Amino acid sequence: MNIICEKEKILKAINSVVKAVASKTTMPILEGILIQTNDKEIKLTTYDLEIGIEYIMEAEVKEEGSTVVNAIMFSEIIRKLPDVEIHIYLNENNLLVIECEGSLYKLATMNPDEFPELPRIDIESAIEVEQNTLKNMIRKTIFAVSTEENRPIFTGCLFEVSSNCLNVVSVDGFRLAWKKQLLNDKVGDFKAVIPGKTLIEVNKIILDSFDKIKIGVSKNQALFEMENCKIVTRLLEGEFLNYASVIPSSWETRIKVNKNQFQDCFERISLISASATEKEKRYPVKLMVDIGKITIACTNQTGDAKEEMYVETEGKNIEIGFNPKYFLDCLKVIEDEEIYVELGTSISPCIIRPIEKTGDYTYMILPIKLKD
Amino acid sequence: MNIICEKEKILKAINSVVKAVASKTTMPILEGILIQTNDKEIKLTTYDLEIGIEYIMEAEVKEEGSTVVNAIMFSEIIRKLPDVEIHIYLNENNLLVIECEGSLYKLATMNPDEFPELPRIDIESAIEVEQNTLKNMIRKTIFAVSTEENRPIFTGCLFEVSSNCLNVVSVDGFRLAWKKQLLNDKVGDFKAVIPGKTLIEVNKIILDSFDKIKIGVSKNQALFEMENCKIVTRLLEGEFLNYASVIPSSWETRIKVNKNQFQDCFERISLISASATEKEKRYPVKLMVDIGKITIACTNQTGDAKEEMYVETEGKNIEIGFNPKYFLDCLKVIEDEEIYVELGTSISPCIIRPIEKTGDYTYMILPIKLKD
Repeated sequence: MNIICEKEKILKAINSVVKAVASKTTMPILEGILIQTNDKEIKLTTYDLEIGIEYIMEAEVKEEGSTVVNAIMFSEIIRKLPDVEIHIYLNENNLLVIECEGSLYKLATMNPDEFPELPRIDIESAIEVEQNTLKNMIRKTIFAVSTEENRPIFTGCLFEVSSNCLNVVSVDGFRLAWKKQLLNDKVGDFKAVIPGKTLIEVNKIILDSFDKIKIGVSKNQALFEMENCKIVTRLLEGEFLNYASVIPSSWETRIKVNKNQFQDCFERISLISASATEKEKRYPVKLMVDIGKITIACTNQTGDAKEEMYVETEGKNIEIGFNPKYFLDCLKVIEDEEIYVELGTSISPCIIRPIEKTGDYTYMILPIKLKD
Repeated sequence: MNIICEKEKILKAINSVVKAVASKTTMPILEGILIQTNDKEIKLTTYDLEIGIEYIMEAEVKEEGSTVVNAIMFSEIIRKLPDVEIHIYLNENNLLVIECEGSLYKLATMNPDEFPELPRIDIESAIEVEQNTLKNMIRKTIFAVSTEENRPIFTGCLFEVSSNCLNVVSVDGFRLAWKKQLLNDKVGDFKAVIPGKTLIEVNKIILDSFDKIKIGVSKNQALFEMENCKIVTRLLEGEFLNYASVIPSSWETRIKVNKNQFQDCFERISLISASATEKEKRYPVKLMVDIGKITIACTNQTGDAKEEMYVETEGKNIEIGFNPKYFLDCLKVIEDEEIYVELGTSISPCIIRPIEKTGDYTYMILPIKLKD
């Protein structure tokens, strides 16, 4: 193998593929990047047996070949080289030589035949969206993915296409996040649950741009395909929550609130509520709705906190308990200036919705029972 | 106690004093800020029994008094309040009430009489420099302070005034950093060794501005005095190294090198040298000087690294071993475009100096013996 490539181009390629390099593994080959040549291109591949990434880039291929090199060491050296052409080749001792101006590095390599093959995917359904759209949908739902391994299906996000609309939904037993996006092209319906970990990495690789990304699914796998770069991941198996059916369709109390002010209140209240002792943890933050006013309050051994906001209210007065973290998580990703907060009884879920009927998100938070 | 103050002003005061709040302590009072009133001012004090900080700020004092409140909780709440006037008072239950628009917080307090008094300092000698000058001097020497507690005197920086020049020197047994600064006013000579930990905190508090700071010393204490803010610290006891006498006055080999290129070479070489196994650690990075050229090289089980640079050389050819970290630490803080590197034999120290004779820094690095 013997190639010449530009530093910035190969660094971009490496930065994309390193996301699927295994970190704690007993198989050193999984800590490597597989480098393969093909006419005027090179292909970099990483695979931690859960996510696999392939990146194809142009390069001057002087001699065909392939090798596997430790990803961290390779990427760090490339990153620190000057921004010029880099000469990369295997020498007679099977070391990977990286040469560039006065710098000469030789790295140990591994046998490319031992690198595990990425699963082949027979795509059954696929959609195409802009990368910034997908980035936004992941960001606005990923925080509600469960981290509990006892119900593995909820450690992923549901990607459901139905009636030309992509719904991304996550749920962890305490709250639910649902983001909608109308699709431009007519596509067939499908459902797939993609691991949260994969989506976090996908989100780092995709750009905040209007460039397209194709999302394809087979029975057990999903594929994210961009120009140059492919990401393969397994799907989670099992039945996801029928999310639409658990969201209350009516409310007893509704408030219209300035999103930023509401968020600031919860951030301050959290300072006190987060300092609660183990025993006090069961006492939640209390939200009280009165005519034209809400009060958020919390008391524990550190101190007392009370926040009042004058807001538009409709319906009944109510007192209800919450974990403020769940409010903060969704308020942080909402960009609207004003939002609706809808409440039922003191033991029914709270819904956060856009003011506009055409709005494209719904958050649901379960209450905590207040001590009498 | 009952005061009204602007949020930004008190936040600035808190940010300055929190640096001396004890973090891991069995005395909760040391985790607090002592708040005292005085006519039209309030004074905030923190003291971890090593560093003490006092900050005086204007405020509307409606009722005199004093209290101690947990520093972290107090600062976090103030930080998150809107940027308006804040009303702070002790209520009938001795809770500290923080009130601002719709927000009302009550924090537990501690008895101000239990707060330890800051040591009184009878200043024997003092100098005045601009804050950015001191900041720069600390930044350029602090990295060579020893972290080994077996020779406590070297865990501090020497501040030596002699012949109207301030010398700040640190040394850890492997390298030495020395920064000089001519003083404008005539002042008496003195020597004081200030704990490195104190200087790190002082450096966070002082500004990158031309505002003055007074440095005063007594037998056992030092005082840093700025407008509004005083920092008190103990001095380290013992005899510091006679630094000027250990620096070689002549060289056998001298190279003139581009600082940034030299630093880049060491940064790349470090990637390989830092990956050495425990056993290989004894093999240092090798620096070879030939006529008009230097080579830096390193070999271990991860790979081989070699860097060549064409530079101006004078004197003998030489091969010498080093820990590249010591080069990087000083190269990172040097701002000159070019520097001199002076060498003696392969077992004598290496000196890094400015090209200008009037330059104001000297770094010394001890070599590591090369294996034959």
